[in-house]
Amino acid sequence: MPLPVTALIPRLREICGDDGVITDPNRRRTYESDGITYHAGTPGVVVLPTSTEQVAAVVRLCSESGVPFVPRGAGTGLSAGALPHSQGVLIVTSRMRRILEIDIANERAVVQPGVANLEVTRAAAPHGYYYAPDPSSQQVCSVGGNIAENSGGAHCLKYGFTVNHVTGLEVVTPQGETVRLGGKSADAPGYDLLGAFVGSEGTLGIATEITVRLLRAPQKVRTLLAAFESMDAGGAAVSAIISAGVLPAAVEMMDALSIEAAEAAVACDYPPGAGAVLIVELDGPAADVDAQFDHATQLCRDAGAFEIRTAADADERARIWKGRKSAFAAVGRISPAYIVQDGVVPRTALPEVLRRIAELSAESGIRVANVFHAGDGNLHPLVLFDDSAPEASEKAAEVSGKILDLCIEHGGSITGEHGVGVDKACQMPEMFSPADLETMDLFRSAFDPGGIANPEKLLPTPRLCGERPGVRKDVHPLVAEGTAEQF
Amino acid sequence: MPLPVTALIPRLREICGDDGVITDPNRRRTYESDGITYHAGTPGVVVLPTSTEQVAAVVRLCSESGVPFVPRGAGTGLSAGALPHSQGVLIVTSRMRRILEIDIANERAVVQPGVANLEVTRAAAPHGYYYAPDPSSQQVCSVGGNIAENSGGAHCLKYGFTVNHVTGLEVVTPQGETVRLGGKSADAPGYDLLGAFVGSEGTLGIATEITVRLLRAPQKVRTLLAAFESMDAGGAAVSAIISAGVLPAAVEMMDALSIEAAEAAVACDYPPGAGAVLIVELDGPAADVDAQFDHATQLCRDAGAFEIRTAADADERARIWKGRKSAFAAVGRISPAYIVQDGVVPRTALPEVLRRIAELSAESGIRVANVFHAGDGNLHPLVLFDDSAPEASEKAAEVSGKILDLCIEHGGSITGEHGVGVDKACQMPEMFSPADLETMDLFRSAFDPGGIANPEKLLPTPRLCGERPGVRKDVHPLVAEGTAEQF
Repeated sequence: MPLPVTALIPRLREICGDDGVITDPNRRRTYESDGITYHAGTPGVVVLPTSTEQVAAVVRLCSESGVPFVPRGAGTGLSAGALPHSQGVLIVTSRMRRILEIDIANERAVVQPGVANLEVTRAAAPHGYYYAPDPSSQQVCSVGGNIAENSGGAHCLKYGFTVNHVTGLEVVTPQGETVRLGGKSADAPGYDLLGAFVGSEGTLGIATEITVRLLRAPQKVRTLLAAFESMDAGGAAVSAIISAGVLPAAVEMMDALSIEAAEAAVACDYPPGAGAVLIVELDGPAADVDAQFDHATQLCRDAGAFEIRTAADADERARIWKGRKSAFAAVGRISPAYIVQDGVVPRTALPEVLRRIAELSAESGIRVANVFHAGDGNLHPLVLFDDSAPEASEKAAEVSGKILDLCIEHGGSITGEHGVGVDKACQMPEMFSPADLETMDLFRSAFDPGGIANPEKLLPTPRLCGERPGVRKDVHPLVAEGTAEQF
Repeated sequence: MPLPVTALIPRLREICGDDGVITDPNRRRTYESDGITYHAGTPGVVVLPTSTEQVAAVVRLCSESGVPFVPRGAGTGLSAGALPHSQGVLIVTSRMRRILEIDIANERAVVQPGVANLEVTRAAAPHGYYYAPDPSSQQVCSVGGNIAENSGGAHCLKYGFTVNHVTGLEVVTPQGETVRLGGKSADAPGYDLLGAFVGSEGTLGIATEITVRLLRAPQKVRTLLAAFESMDAGGAAVSAIISAGVLPAAVEMMDALSIEAAEAAVACDYPPGAGAVLIVELDGPAADVDAQFDHATQLCRDAGAFEIRTAADADERARIWKGRKSAFAAVGRISPAYIVQDGVVPRTALPEVLRRIAELSAESGIRVANVFHAGDGNLHPLVLFDDSAPEASEKAAEVSGKILDLCIEHGGSITGEHGVGVDKACQMPEMFSPADLETMDLFRSAFDPGGIANPEKLLPTPRLCGERPGVRKDVHPLVAEGTAEQF
């Protein structure tokens, strides 16, 4: 039998200090959800460690007591991966935000997990370097959270995900041991547990020190915005660019509804009457960027772009990006409530899937705004609904679910960069066979035999998803029996 | 108690057919060692499956009987990773060599594990694509073996290792289950077990179907050879090139002794009197390559190159590479025996480590030829000795070991691309803490609770390395007690 979480409080105060432990119910409520609106109640207790040693001591205490823990970075996640456990310890990394080293000779930065993504680039910039992964939330999201979710961003078409930029981790395992995975070099002998840890959503432990690759800032960046009458025409431009062998840093697309939302929110002044806008950004050596930029511009024109704007300087570039970067939040201006979906399809299936999404929307009367990383087939449909209307949220959830089914049908994936968390745990059996899921569970249990590390996230459990092959046994249900809170 | 391996033969014949099972002692002897000369005796039995189903059935049979198995590709490995088990089944993939799909629209190839590395590029070339990882043995080594060892090659400075080019695997686990890791897209939800499988040296199972990324052939390739009076001067050129932000596809360096060996073997006609030659290859868009090539040439000149040759066409490029690619084999011309070492140091530590290697060589009287991937700090010292001289092999092994110690001291690694296998299992505790090794062992045991998948490889065992913290327990010692064969 696990101890009640309250029994741990005196020891937690010894480890983290009085100001490092939050027990007050109102202050604990701040941590009720992350970037997506799920509620599982308030965390049993919140701790704010400042060092690896404190994290290890807290986790060891949880392990000895059978009490679950949930790691949390900046709380910007979009899959409820940091949803707290009402009988558990929430370990928040917000006080671990030191940049420990900027090692330009080896092109690496070493940081604590609470450091905000953009701070790494700020620290490297004076040396002419930057950190490539750039989720839209990069001003606030933490590098530790990026590790947990293997975060992407607009530029992962060319530069890859977080996993491609992390070369070393210090990790506290669910049994409270501190281990090192990788280092400053590109490859290490033994199992590449580094790659498996990145994207493990807090279920294998907590990264307490992170070594990332720094890239030399590109010599030149050029950005264009092309307006098309239809999504089909925009999609044709994307295909033409990629198959011509042009590799942009980013290829982003927005449909009429998301353009409307962005205009309402930030007056981004995109070309009026556009059924689709495409943002194409190229970076690299100047000679190469110029040649490819001209090529991409011509391909947009050939695909029917009725207006093409090119950014003359950094200000104009920022203006082009403004509409895209604010799109998610902007949708709040045109709809009281919405679901942000995240799915992937092979690039070749994009036109077909977008048409099917339009049909789904027409049939159900639920509006869907499409904002997406077109270059790598990562869709972010925003499913809009009025939460005051009866059954609107259920209908929206149904449409949202059907969009994911479409992704799976077309050989894609249920998440491109937001992660599984609680949000998509029940969809894992639609993508993976029972043998696949059992293998993942074996792996997880090797790290966490007690089942205390972020339980009920990532893999399906019977309480959330029903009993079926490949579904792991419940260990620490997020909500204790009998509490009224509802997912 | 495990069954004797001979008890499995009738069932193995049912699974693989009579011609798919080798029991004849002389034929079994062919499989005694791989690319490095260790001997642990002949395999108990050899099977040559043709399909995933046959592999799975063989592994299930091993698992039920407690009999160990060893996977083997083309047998070109350099860490004794495919060393057979005298009481086990050797599973050879040489009959699984179909290219299943060349999917140009999604830039992927799907192949069976026995396909030779270079065959993938041959199949993709008519479409203007190629497969990037290029170990020196690429004409014969298998893609499955490349997966097991996470193979690199001369061009991994720019393009990364095998792990950066595999997006999906079908795998038979040590319990005989067939699971899928990843697919055609760049990212998948759940644990990235794909990354952990690549480089797992056959200890987590056998890859039976492999999906790799295809890259568009670069528009232009340019290659130069620069001759320097000393290794120090050549090393300075490498540092200058990298810190100028030039990213060559390959930067290879050879010292006087390896140049001498290459001349003796293939008459590569490198500039006479060179203390070091540097090969620099750039690829990419023509405009970019030309600009960077001129820059790299100038930097070599500034660092003191007394002769620079540039390849005018593919023939001349092949001639420049000929000396480098034949260097390992060529050393046989100037020394009766030698050890190929494989270590990594941070690029910044290269000059210091090379000086220390020269000192070690002078002190011991053992000649060391240096051939290496200079751009990423991956050393391949060839430690030469006369195996007819008393204690020469012991002295050479001592120098070879001290070179690895140097790599570790300087924050590097005991292997860059050849793997751990049997060869370096006992050195793992010098690089990893007991907690690190226990974590790896937990992971391995989650996949392979019976300890039957390539036992005694990768992680240290007491029989080979003595008892100490972090050393896993012996499960299936490669050589049964009392047999005379010696490592």
